[in-house]
Parts: sequence; C-alpha cells; structure tokens
Amino acid sequence: MYEQLKERVCKANLELVEHKLIVFTWGNVSEIDRQAGVVAIKPSGVGYDELTADKIVVLDLNGNIVDGEFRSSSDTATHLELYRNFEGIGGVCHTHSCYATMWAQACKEIPCLGTTHADHFNGPIPVTRIMTPQEIEKDYELNTGKVIVRRFEGIDPMQIPVVLVANHGPFTWGCDGHDAVRNAVVLEHVAKMALGTLQINPQQGDVPQPLLDKHYLRKHGKNAYYGQK
Amino acid sequence: MYEQLKERVCKANLELVEHKLIVFTWGNVSEIDRQAGVVAIKPSGVGYDELTADKIVVLDLNGNIVDGEFRSSSDTATHLELYRNFEGIGGVCHTHSCYATMWAQACKEIPCLGTTHADHFNGPIPVTRIMTPQEIEKDYELNTGKVIVRRFEGIDPMQIPVVLVANHGPFTWGCDGHDAVRNAVVLEHVAKMALGTLQINPQQGDVPQPLLDKHYLRKHGKNAYYGQK
Amino acid sequence: MYEQLKERVCKANLELVEHKLIVFTWGNVSEIDRQAGVVAIKPSGVGYDELTADKIVVLDLNGNIVDGEFRSSSDTATHLELYRNFEGIGGVCHTHSCYATMWAQACKEIPCLGTTHADHFNGPIPVTRIMTPQEIEKDYELNTGKVIVRRFEGIDPMQIPVVLVANHGPFTWGCDGHDAVRNAVVLEHVAKMALGTLQINPQQGDVPQPLLDKHYLRKHGKNAYYGQK
Amino acid sequence: MYEQLKERVCKANLELVEHKLIVFTWGNVSEIDRQAGVVAIKPSGVGYDELTADKIVVLDLNGNIVDGEFRSSSDTATHLELYRNFEGIGGVCHTHSCYATMWAQACKEIPCLGTTHADHFNGPIPVTRIMTPQEIEKDYELNTGKVIVRRFEGIDPMQIPVVLVANHGPFTWGCDGHDAVRNAVVLEHVAKMALGTLQINPQQGDVPQPLLDKHYLRKHGKNAYYGQK
Repeated sequence: MYEQLKERVCKANLELVEHKLIVFTWGNVSEIDRQAGVVAIKPSGVGYDELTADKIVVLDLNGNIVDGEFRSSSDTATHLELYRNFEGIGGVCHTHSCYATMWAQACKEIPCLGTTHADHFNGPIPVTRIMTPQEIEKDYELNTGKVIVRRFEGIDPMQIPVVLVANHGPFTWGCDGHDAVRNAVVLEHVAKMALGTLQINPQQGDVPQPLLDKHYLRKHGKNAYYGQK
Repeated sequence: MYEQLKERVCKANLELVEHKLIVFTWGNVSEIDRQAGVVAIKPSGVGYDELTADKIVVLDLNGNIVDGEFRSSSDTATHLELYRNFEGIGGVCHTHSCYATMWAQACKEIPCLGTTHADHFNGPIPVTRIMTPQEIEKDYELNTGKVIVRRFEGIDPMQIPVVLVANHGPFTWGCDGHDAVRNAVVLEHVAKMALGTLQINPQQGDVPQPLLDKHYLRKHGKNAYYGQK
Repeated sequence: MYEQLKERVCKANLELVEHKLIVFTWGNVSEIDRQAGVVAIKPSGVGYDELTADKIVVLDLNGNIVDGEFRSSSDTATHLELYRNFEGIGGVCHTHSCYATMWAQACKEIPCLGTTHADHFNGPIPVTRIMTPQEIEKDYELNTGKVIVRRFEGIDPMQIPVVLVANHGPFTWGCDGHDAVRNAVVLEHVAKMALGTLQINPQQGDVPQPLLDKHYLRKHGKNAYYGQK
Repeated sequence: MYEQLKERVCKANLELVEHKLIVFTWGNVSEIDRQAGVVAIKPSGVGYDELTADKIVVLDLNGNIVDGEFRSSSDTATHLELYRNFEGIGGVCHTHSCYATMWAQACKEIPCLGTTHADHFNGPIPVTRIMTPQEIEKDYELNTGKVIVRRFEGIDPMQIPVVLVANHGPFTWGCDGHDAVRNAVVLEHVAKMALGTLQINPQQGDVPQPLLDKHYLRKHGKNAYYGQK
C-alpha cells in the first residue's frame, strides 16, 4: 500500500538535492492522498544519499503513523496543519535555502519586483509574525503551521503558494510534492534577485498591478496562454 | 524544409542551459531566415531537457505558423517586432538570467564601468521605460517589442545588442541565435561585475570615452585587431 | 599503528574538498586519540589531490612527532592547544572558507539570526580579540590557540563548537574530525546567510531566546527529538 | 624547438579554465625563457576548448614572432613590457575574473584585510592610475604595461605579484606561467572576501603590520616554515 505515494514523495525530496536547495538534511517534502486521508513525508534526520521510498513515513491527518518504521520529519505537525487548512494543496515543502532564508531571517516580505515573481506568485511573499514564547515552548511545530495559516487570512494559498516563517525559513506548497519543490526553486531565485534589485535601487517598489495581473494570468487561470495546454 | 534553421535554433536554446542562464523554461532563442522570410523559435513552456529540433516552431513575420505542431514561445511577438525593426539582426534571445534581471527590475541602465563591457557593448546598457496599463493589457508582447525599438531611437542595435526591459529582464540579439546567446552571457557577467563595482565604489562612473572607443573598436569594425581574422 | 586514526583524519580532510571549503591547501583537520594521547593531522602544504592516509602526521600533545615522515600542518600548535583545553572535543578543523572568513576579517561576531544557526550553535559565533605584536612574533600558532581558549571562558565549547579568529578565519571542532568538518560547513552557510540577512534588514538582531533554546535543544541534549535516535 | 615551453604555456592557460576564471576567451597566460630570450603566449581569440600547444605563439622580447602560425594575444605588448622590467618574473597572466575585476573597475586598491591575503601578497593590491587619452590612443597595450611598471616603483613585484589595471582587470605574474595562474586564483578569492568583509564592517582596515609580516614570512623567504621544504 501507499507504494506510489511513497515513491513520489521520495522522488520529490531528491529533487531538492538536484536543485541544490539542501545542505545535509535541512529540508523535507510531503504529499497527501486526500482520498485515503494520509500524508507521506521524509523521515527525520535521514541523509538524502540514503533516502529510499521504503523509508518514507505515512501518517493520518492527526499524526498517527500508519506505515513506516522511521520517525517522521520533526516538521510533520507543520505540514499536517497546512493540509488541514489549505484544502486545495497536495504537497508541502520546507527548506533552509540560502536566499529565501535570508529574507525570512530579516523578517521582511519579498516585494514583487518583476515578472519572474509575477509569473509564479500573485503578490508579495508574506512573512509570518514572530512567534510568542508560549507558542514556541509547547507544540512548536503545530504552532508554526498555525501562524502560517493565520497569515493567509484573506490570501488564496494557491495563488501565493509560499511563505517565509520569520526567523526561520520558507515553506512552500503546490498541487503535489513535485509542484511544492518547484515553487521552492522559484522562490529561491526570486529571493536572490530581489536582494540584488534593492542593492542596485533601494527605492524600487512592487511592479504596477496591471503587470502583475498580466504575468500571473498569462500562466494561471482559464485565460492562460503560456505553455502547450 | 527549414531543417537547418530549426537545428541551429534548437542548439542555440540549449547553449543557454550550458551557460547556466536558464531556470526551468524561463528563456527562449529565435533565428530569422531573411530570404525565406521566416523565424524559428522555441515552443512555449517546453522543458529544455526534452527540446529537439523538430519541436521548434517556424513562423512568418506576421506570426503565422508555417511549420511545427507546437505553440510558439509566449514572447514570439516581441521577437518578431525586433526582427521587423532591427534590420541587421539575425537572432534574438530572452532570459531571466539572475544579475541582468536584477538591473532590469531595478529599472537602472548598466553604466559602462570597464573594458569587459566596452569590449562588447558600445555604451551603457539601455533600460526601457515602464509600460503603460494600456500597453500591458492588450498586445503586451508586441508592445514589449515596441518599447524596446523606441528606446533604440538614436542607438545602433548592432553596437549595443542588448536591452533591459524594465520590471522584467534582458533581451539580446546578434547576427544569429548563437551570437544572441553569446551576448546574453556577456551581459550577465557585465551585470554582476557592475553591481559589485558600485558596492565597492558607489561614485564610480562610466569609463572615459577614449577607453570605450579603444576596446570596442579593438574587437569591432574594420580596424579590429582582436582574434585571428 | 594509528592506521585507523590516520585513515579517519585523511577522510575528514578530503570531506573539506567535497564541501568546497578548500582553495589549494588552505585548511586542515586533525583528530585526537585521547587514550593513546596522540593527535593525527594533515601534513603542511600537501595538496588535497595527493593526500593519503600514510602522509598524515601523528604527534603527542606536546607536539613531538610519533609517526609520519612529513612536517605537520603549520597550525598544529593551535590544534594542540585546543585539545589540551577543551576536554570534550575529539576533532579540530581550520579553513579559510569564504563567508566565515569575511566575518573573521571584519572582526565581528555572527549574531544568531535564525533557526539554521540555532539548530547547531547555542548562541552567536564568538570572535577572538586582536592578537598583540608579542603574541604574533613568538609562538604565534600556540598563541592563536590561547586567544581562542580565553575567548571561551564562560562558554561551553561543545555548545558553540566554532570560533572566528580575528583577521584570520574560522576554527571549528567536534566529537571527531568528521564532526568538526560538519560544523565548518554549517558555519559557512550561517555566515553567508547572516551577511544577506543584514543587507536586507540592517536592524535585525538575534532571535528571541526561547526560539534559540527550542531549536538547539530539539537537536541536542537528552530531550532532543530530531533524527532517529 | 620551444616544445616544452609551449606545452607549459598551453597547460597554464587551461588551468585558468579549471579554476573557473575564464569566460569565453577573456584571459591569457605567457611564460618566458630568459636564456633563449623568447616569450610564449596564447593566440588571440582562440577558444580554450580548441587550444593546443602547437597554437601557442613564440615571440622575442621586441614582439617579433619566432614560432607559430597564429596572431598572438592582443595583450602581448603588456606581457612583454612586464618581462622587460620585472627581472625576476617567469610568467604573466591576465584575466577578467569577476571579483578582481570589480575592484579594478572601482579603481580601488584591495586592502590587506586578513591572513589569506597576507599569506600570499606582502601588502595591499595596487591599482594603476587612469590612463590618459594619449596613452590609450597609441600603443595602448604597451602603455598598459608601462603604467603597471610605474605603479611598482618602490614595490618589489615578487612580493606583490598582482596588480589591478584601473577600469580593466587584473594582471598577475610569478616564477612561471603556472605560478602566475596560481596568483590569479588567490587574488580572486582575496578580492571576493575583501568585498564581503567591508560589507560587514565598512570601517575595517589593513591588518596590523606584525600579522602581515608573520604570515607573509611564514610562507616566503629564508625563514619560511610552511610546507615540506
């Protein structure tokens, strides 16, 4: 059971390595099977060079292990909270990728400075508020999910499928694990280019709304005309 | 028909990958056959790892497909506008390469800060004006071409074969697709070095005109003495 | 004798190359066998491409060579001073890795700006004081060790297993040579991200103490819950 | 004749590629045989992927070709001027490597900010003065050599075997071509780290003189104790 799900999750985790977003074991990807009501996720602290599908852990949405012999990622509770609240998402990814983490550590949202950003994310990249000592002390990973969810009140998580957790780093999501990884890659490039853009011109602000709309809708929604579909 | 043209265009697109200027499908190269009156260009949204010559799309200068089963790059109308207006050019390239895009997003022209720049481009790298909501809403890609062409009033596009589209990224051109890619590579290096130069010395301005002339003419024109020709 | 120790030290030195922390011969790793009272260390100025276990030098804690035909690393006296004073450590590593060296040259401690840092190091990264002309002139490498040891008065070297030697670069340590290298890799990433974080937000300070505690203790100590142990 | 010299020069040129200091054909290495009174140098504009020893050009110190069918590097006159004036040198290297070129374009000398610098170069890296229009217009490459030589009045070129040509980029030298390339690699790292150091701490100045002396003399001169000699 869950063989295909575990294969896909293993593959998506390894894609993080291919895209050079991973140092040691700093990152994890999960995917949900909504019909079966289970989430498959990377085991905690297992090196990417020894990661195989049979080591992937499968849990229900309450965090009970239903398959696998390893302990699941320490960030599992964050992933589950996102799945419980963002109904449209099928995969979640967490990394400490260099440039996205810089912005998260700086506690600054990434403004939408160009069409690369607008092609993928429909607005600035939100940053969560600083967590309280109480939220950190008990159920920290669950509360990390909760501050993300709260930050997205009024934002469609499918239109901005990435967030910066303040003092920490990025979480991204998508229609499956592969798509969540893809968004992590885009976010890293957007984060790097935003830093350089503001070094060249500290006054630069978000692109005009019509340009954001144009590029986002060129690639998304029923009138999209990018690609072969 | 058009086999050699399509082969060349496919190869030039793959050169972008070799030079590490491409993330996912963000970029495209085209080449024109002026005698046949056709332009060959990358298909839209097709991954570089699956790109082959038979997937290249061939269009006439009005944008009518004359060969190929795929939809052409979403930036096709920009390419065609450049071919219609810059008579000497044989290839066009568009990327979101990291450092050139930073300058484009910052809406700042790249000053000519050294001989690397002067060896290839006869002056600062122009940036287009911000497009109006009307230009963005309708015929956006065509209008992107038009603001580039307008920006080059009084500039010889063969002497400065690169431009930064404001809020967006670079377009480059050359005598063929390969040459357009080559200019994209040079631009990326020049853009990176310009950022660092101004971080070291924010007061640094363009090189003296005699040095620009010397280096540009050392490599270009009838008195050039660089290389083996 | 010492075959296994020398093999391990050779391997740990080569890990520095894999992690791209080394230019030419700028770096060295050692490991101690506390029971035998000997330290094995890289030979001085030997290229990493020609490094083999039989070239590793073994010395006692007073610096007398007990095995090996090569001269030991010029930094040997620094390593020995650390072993004599930090009882819990089993390996020492020195590099001139790019970003950590920038901070060392800037004579600035690296603030704890995020959870990547807090996961590994229990507080800001200390920088030593500038050495006096007297300390530099005679027994320079020994005195380098001494200023490190003095800087750690009141700090547990196992909780912050890295230091920046002012005007110079990082030294790191750990339970063995491999672990010391691992800490050098983490330090390099933390150093790079700290530079970018402060470029984005120059006012950013250390993370709140509860977050530092949470992340450090999630991975270290008896209540750790990261990984499979 | 000159076979070994040409082989060595070809190899040294290719080392530039291995060290990733080269884009396209932007760089060249030469070596002198002082007894034979000839200099071997890369041909102009020939790609590194097609460079072989038989394409290396051999000239006398007046610039007359004595062997080879290609035109020599456009920078040949600069190399020859250095050989004529710096008696101890055996090889010369020129690149447009990214970070060294940033400093050259910024027309700023690189201060000696740490021991990595002091290990190799006995003081700050000099930058030449801006060349006059007259110097640029006629015998430009020869005059480039002359402003370098003038900048080294009072400096031992063997103790600081690198220079930044203002608005242009680095020239380096050494006891042979291989050593000149090695100094180009060190310079690039030192240049990158200097930029970051000053971003972290804009007030940081040169290291204390005793530390510079210690590190430089640890590796150079009759009391050197680094390495196996």
